[in-house]
Amino acid sequence: MAKQIKPTSALKEQQGISQSEITNQDSIDVIKNKRKVQLQAKTLVKDILKGNIAALSRGITLVESKNKAHLKEANSLIKKCLPYANNSIRIGITGVPGVGKSTFIEAFGNYLISLGKKVAVLAIDPSSTISKGSILGDKTRMEDLVKNPNAFIRPSASGESLGGVARKTRESIILCEAAGFDVIIIETVGVGQSETAVHSMVDFFLLLQLTGAGDELQGIKRGIIEMADAIAINKADGDNLKRAKLAKVEFERILHLYPEKSSQWQPKTAICSALKNEGIENIWKIIQAYIQITSENNFFNKKRKEQNKFWLIQTIENQLKMNFFNNPKIIKELQKQIGLIENNETTPFVAAEVLLKLKK
Amino acid sequence: MAKQIKPTSALKEQQGISQSEITNQDSIDVIKNKRKVQLQAKTLVKDILKGNIAALSRGITLVESKNKAHLKEANSLIKKCLPYANNSIRIGITGVPGVGKSTFIEAFGNYLISLGKKVAVLAIDPSSTISKGSILGDKTRMEDLVKNPNAFIRPSASGESLGGVARKTRESIILCEAAGFDVIIIETVGVGQSETAVHSMVDFFLLLQLTGAGDELQGIKRGIIEMADAIAINKADGDNLKRAKLAKVEFERILHLYPEKSSQWQPKTAICSALKNEGIENIWKIIQAYIQITSENNFFNKKRKEQNKFWLIQTIENQLKMNFFNNPKIIKELQKQIGLIENNETTPFVAAEVLLKLKK
Repeated sequence: MAKQIKPTSALKEQQGISQSEITNQDSIDVIKNKRKVQLQAKTLVKDILKGNIAALSRGITLVESKNKAHLKEANSLIKKCLPYANNSIRIGITGVPGVGKSTFIEAFGNYLISLGKKVAVLAIDPSSTISKGSILGDKTRMEDLVKNPNAFIRPSASGESLGGVARKTRESIILCEAAGFDVIIIETVGVGQSETAVHSMVDFFLLLQLTGAGDELQGIKRGIIEMADAIAINKADGDNLKRAKLAKVEFERILHLYPEKSSQWQPKTAICSALKNEGIENIWKIIQAYIQITSENNFFNKKRKEQNKFWLIQTIENQLKMNFFNNPKIIKELQKQIGLIENNETTPFVAAEVLLKLKK
Repeated sequence: MAKQIKPTSALKEQQGISQSEITNQDSIDVIKNKRKVQLQAKTLVKDILKGNIAALSRGITLVESKNKAHLKEANSLIKKCLPYANNSIRIGITGVPGVGKSTFIEAFGNYLISLGKKVAVLAIDPSSTISKGSILGDKTRMEDLVKNPNAFIRPSASGESLGGVARKTRESIILCEAAGFDVIIIETVGVGQSETAVHSMVDFFLLLQLTGAGDELQGIKRGIIEMADAIAINKADGDNLKRAKLAKVEFERILHLYPEKSSQWQPKTAICSALKNEGIENIWKIIQAYIQITSENNFFNKKRKEQNKFWLIQTIENQLKMNFFNNPKIIKELQKQIGLIENNETTPFVAAEVLLKLKK
């Protein structure tokens, strides 16, 4: 298991307003507002730490808010929750639409709860434009899990860029962990770049597959198989069982063609039937084996550190690009330079130099 | 064929020093140096336009120079050559080491010359650290081509980042075209990210393959097959001919699994033996068919425009990142913020905000 990090007294002190926070630039009003925000966040964090689901829900709504005033409050809330976070297993689950992700998560979640775990399910779906996200439709298929007091299911933030959704999901993970959830499941919609984003925020990445020609190739092509720590062939029941077993062998062969991972973990294959509740226990065993190996060789912690660094650099780079290309001076000159390039009057490299000089 | 762009009188005028180039910031010395540089570039460009190979060689050396003073001269030279460029077919050739790229280029180049073409061969090899690049060893295997006055073979720029090598190769293409070369072949070493770079600077991308299990998978995994406009199975001779034919069928099957390209071109497969000079003509026929289709539907020109834009944006983004992360203030604060993240005192997103504010 990942090392649980206990809050130190130094960290606790930081949760109030420290003297250093008051600078010459701060007006009295700002300090007052800050106090108010800190107080609101303080109440919320208390309830979240008690495992209050309503408070957790409110906290995530705050984190997802597009209101600029809420951003400060959200950041304050996250900062207060951080010392209590990081102590769960984060599992990413992906697979093409129709593979049975929701049914699997229902079966898997219920199994984990039967072991005494608390399970949170978040989703990443940047393509979703409706307000409650696409996972809402799936909720009916997660009926038991939704009703369970030890489960927390949250549809994905919507109407945003992948970067925005990813940030909010990562911050939601922190709140869920602070609320005492042991297992955080992040579901992807199984299209586009969402897998890469999820892979960069979980400890273990599970790929659900169906039997059927071409699927292996699709997974290889999109680089998903390379990311998977385990591949589970779902719907391995009835007439399909034999084919599922064959697919398992095929995926084993494919996995062995990849170079050894730095985790020293050899990705596993499994078959399961989420619908019939078969093979679910085995997948949890695989995940536990992964955690044991990667905790022993310290890859588990190293990976989380690298993920943090990845998101840090990623966020900075995106912002740098946005700042540059949204500058009205740049927008105007960019059009001009593209025109010159198209008329063979300059090269992309010289044009880039002109644009970069303009910014300075 | 791509539309040949004729220099206009307006463009010709730009090749001298225009009044607007003299600003308050320029000192007399700078103007003098500029005149000198322009004169040198002017002489060089005259000889290059005559098809003088020695001048072309000198021009490329200038473009490849790391001397900052040479950069201005190089940019001036390229600007003068630009109106005479863009009128060749640019072909990228890749394949794993041992696939026979050099033998193929020798056979293919000699065939094109026999048709009355002038053929330039450039290489991209960012991994090369020796001064003349790795293609030098191959020169002995391109003996006939090297001696031919209608061929120009240039080893890759070395000891540089892929971005640097790519820029220099793209600029060398312009000089080769200005020197009257009809076909520009860009060879990659077949490892790392060099294929993506080459794919972004050629009209047609040819993948050479060997027969043998696992190769298909490697190509799919690395995204190379997706980029290929044609796959040629080389060494299709003797005992290997039957296997090559089977591999051709297998690659055809794989190619059909990919969605249709925006070029409306369905990638082709072929077999050849560069050593025995067999199947070379067929590959040229495939390339001609590609050019015809993509010229008719205007994809050919559209792709070149998109490539220019790609290199423009790419160059700017790389420079923005370098400027930011090489700033001593940022380097210091980045270390601090990473420390805070590792101690769970901040999140990557809040840390990114702190760093971005610092830059302003």
